[in-house]
This record gives sequence, C-alpha cells and structure tokens, in this order.
Amino acid sequence: METKVILDTLWVLITAMLVFFMNLGFAMVESGFNRAKNCVNILSKNFIVFAVSSLGFLVLGWGLMFGDGSPFIGLKGLFFLNGADNSPAVGDAYKGVYSAISWTGVPLLAKFFFQLVFCGTAATIVSGAVAERIKYKSFIFFSFILAVFIYPIVGHWIWGGGWLSQLGMFDFAGSTVVHSVGGWAALAGIIVLGPRFGKYTKDGKINPIVGHNMSIATIGVFVLWLGWFGFNPGSTMAADPMAISHVLMTTNTAAIAATLSSTIISWIILGKPDLGMTLNGCLAGLVAVTAPCAFVSVGSSLIIGAIGGILVVLAVIGFDRIKIDDPVGALSVHLVNGVFGTLAVGLFAQDKITGVATGNGLFFGGGVKLLSAQVIGILVPGVFVFGLSFLVWSLIKATVGIRVSLQEEIEGLDIGEHGNSAYPEFLTRKPIYSLGVVAEAATPVKVQQSLTQEAR
Amino acid sequence: METKVILDTLWVLITAMLVFFMNLGFAMVESGFNRAKNCVNILSKNFIVFAVSSLGFLVLGWGLMFGDGSPFIGLKGLFFLNGADNSPAVGDAYKGVYSAISWTGVPLLAKFFFQLVFCGTAATIVSGAVAERIKYKSFIFFSFILAVFIYPIVGHWIWGGGWLSQLGMFDFAGSTVVHSVGGWAALAGIIVLGPRFGKYTKDGKINPIVGHNMSIATIGVFVLWLGWFGFNPGSTMAADPMAISHVLMTTNTAAIAATLSSTIISWIILGKPDLGMTLNGCLAGLVAVTAPCAFVSVGSSLIIGAIGGILVVLAVIGFDRIKIDDPVGALSVHLVNGVFGTLAVGLFAQDKITGVATGNGLFFGGGVKLLSAQVIGILVPGVFVFGLSFLVWSLIKATVGIRVSLQEEIEGLDIGEHGNSAYPEFLTRKPIYSLGVVAEAATPVKVQQSLTQEAR
Amino acid sequence: METKVILDTLWVLITAMLVFFMNLGFAMVESGFNRAKNCVNILSKNFIVFAVSSLGFLVLGWGLMFGDGSPFIGLKGLFFLNGADNSPAVGDAYKGVYSAISWTGVPLLAKFFFQLVFCGTAATIVSGAVAERIKYKSFIFFSFILAVFIYPIVGHWIWGGGWLSQLGMFDFAGSTVVHSVGGWAALAGIIVLGPRFGKYTKDGKINPIVGHNMSIATIGVFVLWLGWFGFNPGSTMAADPMAISHVLMTTNTAAIAATLSSTIISWIILGKPDLGMTLNGCLAGLVAVTAPCAFVSVGSSLIIGAIGGILVVLAVIGFDRIKIDDPVGALSVHLVNGVFGTLAVGLFAQDKITGVATGNGLFFGGGVKLLSAQVIGILVPGVFVFGLSFLVWSLIKATVGIRVSLQEEIEGLDIGEHGNSAYPEFLTRKPIYSLGVVAEAATPVKVQQSLTQEAR
Repeated sequence: METKVILDTLWVLITAMLVFFMNLGFAMVESGFNRAKNCVNILSKNFIVFAVSSLGFLVLGWGLMFGDGSPFIGLKGLFFLNGADNSPAVGDAYKGVYSAISWTGVPLLAKFFFQLVFCGTAATIVSGAVAERIKYKSFIFFSFILAVFIYPIVGHWIWGGGWLSQLGMFDFAGSTVVHSVGGWAALAGIIVLGPRFGKYTKDGKINPIVGHNMSIATIGVFVLWLGWFGFNPGSTMAADPMAISHVLMTTNTAAIAATLSSTIISWIILGKPDLGMTLNGCLAGLVAVTAPCAFVSVGSSLIIGAIGGILVVLAVIGFDRIKIDDPVGALSVHLVNGVFGTLAVGLFAQDKITGVATGNGLFFGGGVKLLSAQVIGILVPGVFVFGLSFLVWSLIKATVGIRVSLQEEIEGLDIGEHGNSAYPEFLTRKPIYSLGVVAEAATPVKVQQSLTQEAR
Repeated sequence: METKVILDTLWVLITAMLVFFMNLGFAMVESGFNRAKNCVNILSKNFIVFAVSSLGFLVLGWGLMFGDGSPFIGLKGLFFLNGADNSPAVGDAYKGVYSAISWTGVPLLAKFFFQLVFCGTAATIVSGAVAERIKYKSFIFFSFILAVFIYPIVGHWIWGGGWLSQLGMFDFAGSTVVHSVGGWAALAGIIVLGPRFGKYTKDGKINPIVGHNMSIATIGVFVLWLGWFGFNPGSTMAADPMAISHVLMTTNTAAIAATLSSTIISWIILGKPDLGMTLNGCLAGLVAVTAPCAFVSVGSSLIIGAIGGILVVLAVIGFDRIKIDDPVGALSVHLVNGVFGTLAVGLFAQDKITGVATGNGLFFGGGVKLLSAQVIGILVPGVFVFGLSFLVWSLIKATVGIRVSLQEEIEGLDIGEHGNSAYPEFLTRKPIYSLGVVAEAATPVKVQQSLTQEAR
Repeated sequence: METKVILDTLWVLITAMLVFFMNLGFAMVESGFNRAKNCVNILSKNFIVFAVSSLGFLVLGWGLMFGDGSPFIGLKGLFFLNGADNSPAVGDAYKGVYSAISWTGVPLLAKFFFQLVFCGTAATIVSGAVAERIKYKSFIFFSFILAVFIYPIVGHWIWGGGWLSQLGMFDFAGSTVVHSVGGWAALAGIIVLGPRFGKYTKDGKINPIVGHNMSIATIGVFVLWLGWFGFNPGSTMAADPMAISHVLMTTNTAAIAATLSSTIISWIILGKPDLGMTLNGCLAGLVAVTAPCAFVSVGSSLIIGAIGGILVVLAVIGFDRIKIDDPVGALSVHLVNGVFGTLAVGLFAQDKITGVATGNGLFFGGGVKLLSAQVIGILVPGVFVFGLSFLVWSLIKATVGIRVSLQEEIEGLDIGEHGNSAYPEFLTRKPIYSLGVVAEAATPVKVQQSLTQEAR
C-alpha cells in the first residue's frame, strides 16, 4: 500500500479515537453540572448514546449521509455499508457509491469510523439539555432517530455533496453539521419536556440548580478540549502537515481566548469568576472555531474564540430569563456558538489559509457571497432539525411518554429509572432548591414525605 | 531508516500508550465498584501493579515469553533483554534470539514496551477479583509471580512460537493470553481468599455490596474502551491500513453490541437497566472480540459482542449463586468472555478477512479443525494457570498470609493497610450490608464496637 | 511534502496533545491533594493557567525563547510569531529568525504548539505549591509573567541556542527548563505567601492537612504518566524509531523504579505504604529522567528513577520540617528532582545511547566536564528564576495583594473567590486540623464563629 494511504489512515484513526474519547468528556460535564440524585441516569444516557447512535449510523445513517443520490438524501449503498466501494482509491480511480467522501484516500472502514464518532457527538449534545427529567428509554429512542435520519440528512446536504455544499456553504469540522444539529434537536426536546421541577417558581423567581461535582465537570472539559484536537485537525482526513498544524493552532487559540473572555465577562457580570462559565466558555470557543478552523488565520481565531466566550455567558443568562431550562448550557455552547461559528466563516475566511477556495469572507474583501451561503446553511438546517425533532419528541411523548413522574423527578431518576445510586455511601444534603419550593408546589402527600426525607 | 519501520514504530508505540492508559481504567472501575473504606487500597494496588509487573517482565518475563527455546518455554536472552537482536530487521534478515516476534519490523524496545503493557493488563485483572480483603503485600507478591512466570509461559505457548501456535490455535490480541490468564489466576485467588465478610450469610442470603462511586467507574470503562483501540488494532504491530481499520471496527462493533445486549438483558431480568451491567457488558464485548477481531467480519463481531453482553449478565448472577465473591465481576468479564472469545475464533473466523490463514471457523465451512485447536487452547492454559496460581496463592497464604484481619476488613483496608482515607472530609453512612449482619456474626467485642462506630 | 516532514509532524503534534493533556493531570493531583473547600479555586487555577500561559507565550514568550539574538535573550520575531520563517526547511535550507529550533523539520505552528504545551507545564507546576491561600487574580498575573518572560529567558539559554547550550549543558526534555524553573518560581511564591493557616502551630507542631479525594489524585498521576510519554519521547521532535523507543523505555523504567522505591521507603519510614508518597514518587522518577532520558541506558534510568523516588519522600518530610508549606509536594517532585535529573546527565550520560554527543558522564569515564556544565546549568537558572520570581511575587503582594483574608482562607477559597462550591450536596466534616488550632489562634470573633460552623 502506498505510504500516503498509510499516513492518512494513521491520522484519521488516531484523531477518530480522540473524538470517541469526547463521550467521556460529555458524560462528565453533564453529570458534574447536575445533581447527585440523577447521576446514574446521566452516566447511563451518556454511555449508551454512543452504542445507540453507532448502531443507527451503521444500519442506515451512513448510507443516507454519504451514499450517492439526490442533493437532499443519499440513495445508494444505504444499509450496513453494503454499497460498492474501492477505497482507498481517490479521484477518477474511485469506483463506488460513496463518491462524496472519496476525496480522502483511506479505507472505507476508516472513513466510516471517523464519521461515526461525529454522529455520536451530535447525539450526545442532546443528552445534557434534557437531563434530570427525561425517561431513559425515551432518550434512547430519540438518539436512534437522530443518528438514523436527522443527522445524516443534514450531513448529506453539507458533507455528502448535497445542495448546501453545491451552494458554496462551508462547515469544515461541523459547527452546523454536528453542533447546531445537536443544539436544535435539544431545543425541541427542552420545549416539549418543559423545565425541571422547582427551577422556575410561580412568582417568577429563577432558582439556580447547582452541579454536584465540579471535579468531574472539569475532567470533562479537559477531555473534550483534547478530543477537539481530533475533531478539528482530524477533519482534514489527510496527514497534511501545514493544514493540521494550522487547524490545531486555530482550535487551541479560540479555546484559550474563549476561556479568558468568558471568565472576564462572568467576573464583571456576576461579580466573581464562575468556574462553570469558564468551562462552558472554553467549549463555546471550540464550537465556534469548528466551522472556520481551516479557513481563518490564527489572529481571526483569537477574535472568534473571544466572541464565543462572551456569547455563551450572555446566552446562559438569557435562556434562563426566557425559562428555557437547559441544565448544562448545551444550547448556549452548541447551538448559539454553532450558529456563530458557521457565520464566522462568512466573516473571517481567507482563501490563502490552507488552500481551500471558500472565497473570502466579509471582513477580508469577499463581500456577502460566502456570508449569504452560510446564513442559508444556518437557517434551513435549523428549521428542518428543529421541526423534525419537535415532531419526533412529540410522538414519543404521545406514545411511550417523555417525562418521569414528579415523584420520581423529586426523588431522583437514579432510583426510579435504574434502581441504583451513584454515591450510596455518602451523606448528601437536601437540595437547596427545594427549601423555598416545597410549600407552594401542589405536590401529593407522598411527595411531601419524600421531600422531608430527602436528606438521605 | 526506511519509512515502513518508522510508520510501524509510530503505530506500535502510540497504541502501546493507549494500552498503558488502561491501567487508569482498571483502577477506576475497581474503586468505583467497591466501597469508599477500601478505596485507597484499591487505588494503591492498581497503581503499583504496573510497576511490579513491568519490573518482573523486564527482569525475566520477556525472555521466558519470546526467547528462543522449547515449545514450552523461552530459554535464550532470558534476563533484562540481554539476548542478541538486530531488530527492526525481519524475516531472514533477523539475527537474534527473539525469533517469535521478529515478524514485526520495529526496534526491540518498541516490541518490549508493547508486550509489557499487555502483561500489565493481565496482572491488573486479578486485582478487582481479590479486592476488599487481600493484604497489600500479598497482592504485590502474586503480581510479580504472574508477570515473571505464569503469564510469560502461557504467552510463549501462543505468541512465543510455542506448542499451541504450532497446533494452529489463534488468539489475535489476547482473549486467552491476557484475559483468561488473568481470569484463571483471579478465580484461584477468590477461592483461596474466600468471600468478603457479610457477603453471604448463614441463612443463604446474598447481600449486594454496592459500589461507592459510579462516576469514576464510568470514567474507567470509557478509558478502557479507548485503550482497547490500542489493544486490538495495535496488535497488528504494523501500520497496515486495511487491517487496522478492520480491527478497530470489529472492536467497536462488539463493544456497542454488548453494551446494548447487556442493558436489555439486565432490564428484562432485573426489571431496570442497571448501569453496572451496562458497563461490564461493554467490557465483556471488548474481551470477547479480542481474540477474533482480525479474523471475523463486522457482522460476526456484532453477534460476538451481543452474546458477550448476555454472558456477562448471566455470569455475574451465576457466580453470586455459587458464592464466588468477585467484587467487580472480573471473572464474568475476563474469564468467561476470554473463553468465549477464544472459542468464537473457531466459530466465526474467515480466511478472507485480513489475510491471516486461520482456516475458516465452524460457521463458515471450516469444520471443527480450528475449533478443536481453540478448545485445547482454552483448556490447557486454564488448567495450568488455575493450578499454578492456586499453588502460589496457597503458598502466600501459608507464609506471609493472604487476608487482612476481620477487624481490619470491617473498618476498611485504607486505615489498616495504608493509614489513609480516600475521602476524609466527606461524611459516609454505615454500609448497608452490615445492618442485617452484625447480630449473627460471631465477632469479638472489639469488632462489634467498631461496627457501631462505623458511620465515621 | 516529503514523507519525513509528514512523519515528524504527526509525531510532534500527537505527543504535543499528550503533553497538553497533562493539564488535566496537574489539576486532579492538586485538587485531590487539597481540601474540598478550595477545590473550585484549584480547578479554576489549573484550567485558566493554560489559557494565560498560551496567550503569554504567543504574544512574546516564543520570540524571547527561540528568536535569534544574543546568548541571553531572543531579539528577532518577538511578537505573535511574526518573524520570517520557511519551516519545515532545515539546516542550510532554513531561512528565518528562529534558527535555534530549525533542526526539526516540521511546520512553524507545529513547533510553536509543541513548545507552548511545555511552557504551560512550567506555569502549572507553580499552582500546586501556592494552593489554598493565594488570590485567584494574583496567581493569574504571575502565570502570565512566567510565560512571557521568566520561562522563555531560561529556555533561550538552554534550548534557544543561548549561553548554557554553548557551554555544553544538556537538558533533553526539560528537567531544568520546565521542572526546576517551575519549582524555583514556586519556592519563591511559598516564601512570599507563607504557610497555610493551621499548618504549623506556635508550639512547633506540624499538622498534616490531608487531601480530600484520592481517586481524582490517582487519575491525575496516571494522566501525567501518559502525558510524559509525549513529553520525553516527543522531545526528539522527529519520528526516529530507535530514539523514541529508547526514550519511551527509559521514561517508563524510571517511573516504575521510583514508584517502587518511594513506596518502600515510605513503608519503612512511615510504617505503612502511603498512597500519596507512591503517587509523588512516580512523578519524581518522571521528572528525574526528563533531562537524561535520551542520553542514558535503560539500566541507568532504573537507578535514576529509584533515587528520585527516595529523594521525593525525604524532601517532602524535610520541607515540612523547615516549615516550607507546599500543599502538593511540588518542590519535592519538580524542584528537587528537576535538579537531580539535570545532575544525573552529568553522571550517567553515554555518547553511544542515541547518538547525541553529550560527552560521557562521570560514571562512564567522562570526568567532570559534562558534570560541571550541568552544575552551572542548575545554579544560574536557579538563582535567576528564584530571584526574579521573588521580585514579581513581592510586587504583586505590594500592589493587588497576594493572599486571601484569614476569614476567607478558613471558610474556603471556593466561596470567597468564586462564589461556588465543588460538592454542594455532600455533607463534609470539620477539617481535622482545626480541632487543635482554634483555641490558640488569635482569630477575631467572626472567624471563631465560622470555625464552629465549618461543618457545613
């Protein structure tokens, strides 16, 4: 086998492993940012979501996304990678039905695994937003649908040779394909589910519900940061020294800029540097630079990251004001910054960066041509994913049900859904939120009792 | 140096690093699945075991395993890698005493480090099974003996050019060499040690002893999953794009199938989806596919994983019924699925997969030829490792002793063995198991007092 | 692009990612070894320090370190990597202002990122030493100064073609450049800050302040160990199979030797095998072998590691006796063993190892020539970094202040500095140290009250 194929395969597989590892990062961020009584449920969701989405992407998702077909959907080689394919052949030498991804000269299974871990990321984003109240099996159903249909269809439009790529829209590593898609699906889920018990009270008060373990939340973000060095630089899907060095650098630069800007802005607004904001700030910068990382300069990535870090703080506060209850800030991180990052391509892109001819962005003399394509690439997937997800969530709600009982929510999903407890030996206090809530909530006597006994 | 040597060395070293990282995974699974009062002891065991087995493998283990010699044991270049060797030369160009591993064209120290981390894995498997009652120094002694003698001798039979490899038995990445060997040694240890205090009561009741921290247990399994991407694909010991992509894919597919099947089966049997079963299910699928990963199709790996996930749930329940007290399910994961995985080669192997001529398995027209070799490769190492380990554990018991005092076991090994506590600031409850046990156990007064004070 | 450039770039970037991951390791070691009430602050420091040092190194640090200039400081291409550079060209083909690092044939941004993560490591070493009493913003200021000026200047002397490298001093991966520099800066910080409240009492008693979470401390050390496989082998900055295999092996061998020697020595001195000593012992061996890893044999690395493991135990006990309050043992690990490791080059180096002509060390017939250069390379950076850091810490103290109020220190920095708590749901006990301290400390009534209420 020729050396280039070996080199590219090593790069693709190693970076795919790093992206896989992001599952650990998401699991720890979500459980750390939520309460101990729901920790087993959160760990379970984050663990099984990769299995479920892997299966879905293997069964059909890959085919819909990368199969040759119409500009809207893949139609060939749909099931279990069963289409003809002579990878790692590229260009004219390629004979097969997955032409859209024939530009990378690696074996078919390497392409599949790399794309699979991206699909898994989109599915796991949803998990954090619907935490602490969703039924385990309902989450599993939605994840499967997302991996089988929703994600691959939008993916086909942008990475599968579909109509958005033909329009000249660019999303290098997936600010839209992965993060916004996950974010829109999460928003629909939040709306169908409603907020957690005790989060917003009748008198309009917003009760903060604090996370139970900042150590593991921090583990999570460090792991995600590392994983992003696979996510973005790996998306070259080729071991091109100049390109991967550049993408690694813009990725890290955006992350540090966002870490700093979110810390400073939260210090100013909240009076103290909030660790949760710093951590989400870092993730926001990483999401924002995901689309533009290969098209913008290091200096531009510094600006993009800094803006991302500010956006996430404002968004967390803003979503809370409009009573969108997002326990981990998934919308602020992935949706808001997925949108911003996709837009940033239209503003900061420069043809000269890594040789991809995106056309220059607005700030570099390219006018609104690229920017317009990016805006369409934000809006249409947004409407599509939000609408379809809303429908799916509503169908789940109408059939198997979507939300655990109030009793179970108050007692914790760990006991109710799993019959387990994450830290059975440790003495925990009554959650702070319930202090002011018990009196006014019209809860049945049984729940009242459980509330008083909650200092288990 | 020629390019192929560089590429192969990069692959071998990077995947070896991932396998090294599995030490963290095992440490977290074992401590998470056990009680807080033994956590420092468990962390200590898992940390030092790699050091001890590294030393043992360096001093003599490597030589016994890969040194030229008889079909039963290596006899040349035994100590400290001191034999002649002109690696990375391969084939006829190779001149040295480690011929059995001269098929991979990387430097000697790269071969050694890759094999070392596998030896470390075998040793660490034992740790979980003997947790919460073994003396620290007795565990250290056994680990050293395992790394110096037991593991290398079986390894020589299968990977060192010995009689099992000559017989046509195949174990690609070590379902037997690593996992069953660790599992048989663990079983002997469990029998010599006996169950933990309070686990099985006189009236035949089985008391569940639940883990203290599911967050770190989940960290552990994610890290092990990542590590397995080094364990299996790295066992090619060459950067062959088709082979490593295939092995990565069968590995992941078995893991997700087992994650799903163990979750479903535990949901059916236990009434709720148990996180511990899901986590052990994933590991079971990974163990099961370790032997066949390079010889079977992706579809077969899906079936192998699904069976592995079911086996582990049944085995955990079954071992408990026959009062084999295995605190983390190490036997169910590593022994049962190590055996099954080795067998699966004889059932599912196909010559066409990655070009290794194993002969086809039973389900693909190969008859029982390969299957017979696999059965012998299961039975003889099983008898050998179990018997020798039983002897070694018994000798340790007769000399330095094997089990901490009942007093110490009840108070926790952290204070008794290490004078430390893992979480000294957190208030913990009296372990649930002791509630029903205190009365009937004929414990001396001093222990009774400590039991009442146990809510430290 | 030629194959060698691709191979070297892959190696440099992947190992750089591993070094980046060490930030997680440091964060977990520091928070695990300290008290729960300061955990958010510690996580915050460890998270933001990489952002701050990245910015500092990007803005100016890189230019001072690697820019052409005088033997004492870089003078060209100072800001934002703005100098001429035609990397990956090497040797005579190189045209640019960063000549000192033109020996490695990778893109400029790959060089930068690899060096950046080393700078970040130096900065993060300081964090542990000043924990549990420093103001958040004061730590941020110092980290920036360290990354912008202090680290790059010493780095220029040794790795930037400066006077120490011209003198024939060798520090392969940074026992001095990274670890001693961090250690001297930390020592100055400890002296300016003073010990934690309650650590040393008037009657000369030394109160142990135990860590709150040994599980995450252990996670930290495993992650650091993995990271070191990037730190040392990556410092070849080229995919040279023989060299990277050798360096990986000496690195691991020193780590296991130190793990064992520190465990044994602490078992002898303290009566029990202390996990904290085992963990710090491992790190000590890794620091000690960092300078010599490419110049010494595997046998020598075993001895170097074993000595490092003993040194760290003695140093931890010794620093406590002279009332240098170092909460995580950062000085014992990084300063003492950074010095020892640099010295070890002068003792154990052999020209034949990887072909670098260091001249042989004292034990291998080289006389005191190399040893003398090493001693100068220890002393002058020591005086420079300690002096300059002392000045900077003192300036910070005199302006924005360096230490939180006694009230805040007793209540915990999490509430005071960040308004957060790491584990708000878990019930914690009154810290043990305060029991004997309350009476004699001349604390104001308000603090007395908070002390009695501390069992929050």
